[in-house]
Amino acid sequence: MNKGENTRLRIVKEAAGLLNQRGFEGLAYSDLMAATGLEKGGIYRHFPGKQNLAEEAFRYAWKTAVEQRQRGLESIGNSVEWLKAFVSNFVHIRPGVPGGCPLLNAAIDTDDGNPALRRHAERALRGWLSTLTRVVSRGQRRGEIHPAVEASRAARLLVATLEGALMISRLERKTAALAEAESHLHCFCESLRP
Amino acid sequence: MNKGENTRLRIVKEAAGLLNQRGFEGLAYSDLMAATGLEKGGIYRHFPGKQNLAEEAFRYAWKTAVEQRQRGLESIGNSVEWLKAFVSNFVHIRPGVPGGCPLLNAAIDTDDGNPALRRHAERALRGWLSTLTRVVSRGQRRGEIHPAVEASRAARLLVATLEGALMISRLERKTAALAEAESHLHCFCESLRP
Repeated sequence: MNKGENTRLRIVKEAAGLLNQRGFEGLAYSDLMAATGLEKGGIYRHFPGKQNLAEEAFRYAWKTAVEQRQRGLESIGNSVEWLKAFVSNFVHIRPGVPGGCPLLNAAIDTDDGNPALRRHAERALRGWLSTLTRVVSRGQRRGEIHPAVEASRAARLLVATLEGALMISRLERKTAALAEAESHLHCFCESLRP
Repeated sequence: MNKGENTRLRIVKEAAGLLNQRGFEGLAYSDLMAATGLEKGGIYRHFPGKQNLAEEAFRYAWKTAVEQRQRGLESIGNSVEWLKAFVSNFVHIRPGVPGGCPLLNAAIDTDDGNPALRRHAERALRGWLSTLTRVVSRGQRRGEIHPAVEASRAARLLVATLEGALMISRLERKTAALAEAESHLHCFCESLRP
């Protein structure tokens, strides 16, 4: 990466944290200047508008979250075990971008707001659900998961329970809700076996 | 109510919708003027600062949501049936204040932001969890729910799954996630019986 690309990435990283914590309305160039140590001109040269910046910041935050949540899963062959490990990753790995789950934040921030950012959040959700749905379907082809399970339904339930528990956990500033969701969802994953 | 109280309530109602849809940062007196048809001075006379206005708007939105979610439940004696009906109310009754669940919105909006509004969201969550916990405990005393169930744990799981499903449903603009959560949680409630 050359110097310009490095600066751009530094801006995106800091913007990702600010956006994730404060939402689109709360993302301010002044805070970004303080966080990056760059002059206003240095930021504008890369991002002349907040819209582009916010979209790139969201993509960065989401990519980071997905990588973290799938960490170590490639070595797990059994689909039920994969899903359980995924749940545990969500519960135990604190995200690299501060402010909680970028998808949950963007979903709430944009559901009555910024339409372009909303589309990014929708795409993130679709991608996540389709990853989980594929794992369930693969498990069914391999005889690891009961054929009567509706793959997309199981995927949605996993995501809903995890995201809701994260909201409670962050508001309570306690891990109880996430720990309880983990144990409940591990049982749910076990119940998918034939 | 006299004229002044009526005006105040009209401001709070409109502010509740704006806050719930746009968050604290996005709540603007200009939009409130347009929504209420009042002059700036007329609003300032009741709410000289946005902080007070936002807190009162949140309380109004939450009170409305709680009333709607508990609608018709007072006539249900059995605790498991009460919990199931509560789940169905959450899924099927669209809230009177636009923008989705006030608790979910305020939790995400304030978890890295406005501390006073955050305390209101915390209190709302505590109140909700304690209502559900009490229903489970009452069910245990009456022999309707298995004594080994941890009441507060069951309460948290219900709230987490519903709120997460609502987030997905609103982002997908489809009812599937909520309908799936309803059927999953009805099974969960049935599993609480002795």
